[in-house]
Amino acid sequence: MTSTDKDAFLAIYKEIETDLIADIQNLPALSDSVKQQLIDYYSVCIPYTVPGGKMTRGLTVIKGVEVLKQRKLTDKEYKDAAILGWQVEWLQAFFLVADDIMDASITRRGSPCWYKKPNVTQDNAINDALILENMIYQTLRRHFKKHPSYVQILELFIDTTFQTEVGQHIDTNGTPYADGKRAPLDLSRFTLDRYQGCVRYKTCYYSFYLSCALALAYCGYDPDTTEGKALYQNAEDICMILGEYFQIQDDVLDAFAPPEVLGKIGTDIEDAKCSWLVCKALELVSEEQKEILMANYGKHDAEGVKKVKELYRELKLEELFQTYEEEQKKMCDDLIAKIEPQNFQDLFKFLLAKIYKRQK
Amino acid sequence: MTSTDKDAFLAIYKEIETDLIADIQNLPALSDSVKQQLIDYYSVCIPYTVPGGKMTRGLTVIKGVEVLKQRKLTDKEYKDAAILGWQVEWLQAFFLVADDIMDASITRRGSPCWYKKPNVTQDNAINDALILENMIYQTLRRHFKKHPSYVQILELFIDTTFQTEVGQHIDTNGTPYADGKRAPLDLSRFTLDRYQGCVRYKTCYYSFYLSCALALAYCGYDPDTTEGKALYQNAEDICMILGEYFQIQDDVLDAFAPPEVLGKIGTDIEDAKCSWLVCKALELVSEEQKEILMANYGKHDAEGVKKVKELYRELKLEELFQTYEEEQKKMCDDLIAKIEPQNFQDLFKFLLAKIYKRQK
Repeated sequence: MTSTDKDAFLAIYKEIETDLIADIQNLPALSDSVKQQLIDYYSVCIPYTVPGGKMTRGLTVIKGVEVLKQRKLTDKEYKDAAILGWQVEWLQAFFLVADDIMDASITRRGSPCWYKKPNVTQDNAINDALILENMIYQTLRRHFKKHPSYVQILELFIDTTFQTEVGQHIDTNGTPYADGKRAPLDLSRFTLDRYQGCVRYKTCYYSFYLSCALALAYCGYDPDTTEGKALYQNAEDICMILGEYFQIQDDVLDAFAPPEVLGKIGTDIEDAKCSWLVCKALELVSEEQKEILMANYGKHDAEGVKKVKELYRELKLEELFQTYEEEQKKMCDDLIAKIEPQNFQDLFKFLLAKIYKRQK
Repeated sequence: MTSTDKDAFLAIYKEIETDLIADIQNLPALSDSVKQQLIDYYSVCIPYTVPGGKMTRGLTVIKGVEVLKQRKLTDKEYKDAAILGWQVEWLQAFFLVADDIMDASITRRGSPCWYKKPNVTQDNAINDALILENMIYQTLRRHFKKHPSYVQILELFIDTTFQTEVGQHIDTNGTPYADGKRAPLDLSRFTLDRYQGCVRYKTCYYSFYLSCALALAYCGYDPDTTEGKALYQNAEDICMILGEYFQIQDDVLDAFAPPEVLGKIGTDIEDAKCSWLVCKALELVSEEQKEILMANYGKHDAEGVKKVKELYRELKLEELFQTYEEEQKKMCDDLIAKIEPQNFQDLFKFLLAKIYKRQK
């Protein structure tokens, strides 16, 4: 099995799920009927919220262990790396279930958001997000309690969770005009400076850095040595750039990709999101053009959205993005070429290849 | 300083808060203005949500270390125990912020619930609950990373969090008639069996057992030895009984204590809670009396609430509770008398004294 084998990766998911359901079965001092209710509920919740999507974050851990070992993994190594990879996917599931409630989203991966399911509702879904988070630590203990990097792995998940929550706070409070809130649209919050901070915390750490750091930790690289410290730092530096580039693509695709290719209908303009497009636009607009944004950004109105997109086209933001993309690609290539050990470079080439010129 | 000195305990809280705010100050790659927003926000959030209340859970850790050491604590031991105690209070803050959203509560400790504050709103509050949870692990690392029981302490918090979340799930799904939900009142869910499971998971572990187990862990008692295992098991057994007794008191006080003594107006009947009173009533009612419950339980209607309370009086539930309380007291006394080492008994006598015949 290798990092490109999605079926093998999904087979490990199934084992993890089975163990977690067995944990519920083994809870003491609960009647059979209550236990059965719990089992029935989480046997639906886990497969609904965790697998699915591109699984890049999880597969990146396997790829990382492969490039660090410089050989085909043993069955044990493959399984360990896949289990760690799934914990990144579990972390993402926890964030997505909670974020969808906070953002009042309707669909996720083409289906209703978990909290929108009639038998779930928001009350359960908040608690389910917490339970999904907790399952990470149950699974890590089951498989890595005796691993020399156990504490480091726990702390990586704890720190990444904190960083992502900080990003969520910045994001939420940079959008004072979301539906249901009465504060007026405050364009002054949409700066590239704020955008960078938000993306770093909300996306880069958990979507890029965590998987790379887990591969390093699993392979025994110690961040408390001089050599180890440099390795983790280089991985973090390149992950911050890759993650920002990935998020800017996401923002451009949200406005300009055909929905049938993207798989969803973008609503960043309606939701008054702190998107790269609006930040960049605000750097370039005349006073007159700024009025168009003031009048139409953050409203659920098709005509207004059209006007904002017309303004983006006038400002040639798509072309600006293409220039940015080529610059980022070159910057990443140069940074990756400097990474040591040389074999570790392949991990970041793998990530860069997944995002360069992506259409969805 | 001893376990009865609340000011000394609160001084340690202040130190923990200062360290957490300094962590935000030290976050990399954020503009000063974003950082200041975060600091301003959490400098309000933490003192609003964490301190306050009786602080029994936190003080219990100090008491536990005192009785296990059988002497006055050194300054270092006091501070360590107080820090651990505050992490139990932080855990409670995390649960309460999240529960108040799930239960759509209005007030908490006499003030508006955190999510009800105009500058917070539900979106922020969900994320704040997660950040409060994460702070536990940041603080534990800061102070106990080198402690021989560090991993055990981490796992105690992780397990207690899971147990409480399981309890929350049972509780939420045992109340199908809460406001805003259209399912009909299902009295068959209100059984003492379900009640016991719910209370054990939702209350006993985090409100009673966790503090006792932390004291044992801090003092070096190893649950993987035969002697150690028995200690933790005895603590768990007595905590489950104390916790259930505490919760049953809570339910009785909710219906019958004068609001001016209790400090809040009970709404368990209106909220269709799985209270000990309704479970016990359903064991005793005639078909005719059951109709009164069916017609009035779970409605926000003062006349209906009055009818339910009249029924409780007819069924002599307060008298039944008084008998139950004396039996529990005796059972606890007997169980406590068997605990070894003998000095450890004082911890449970301390807890029992806090709850026996309490009026609020």
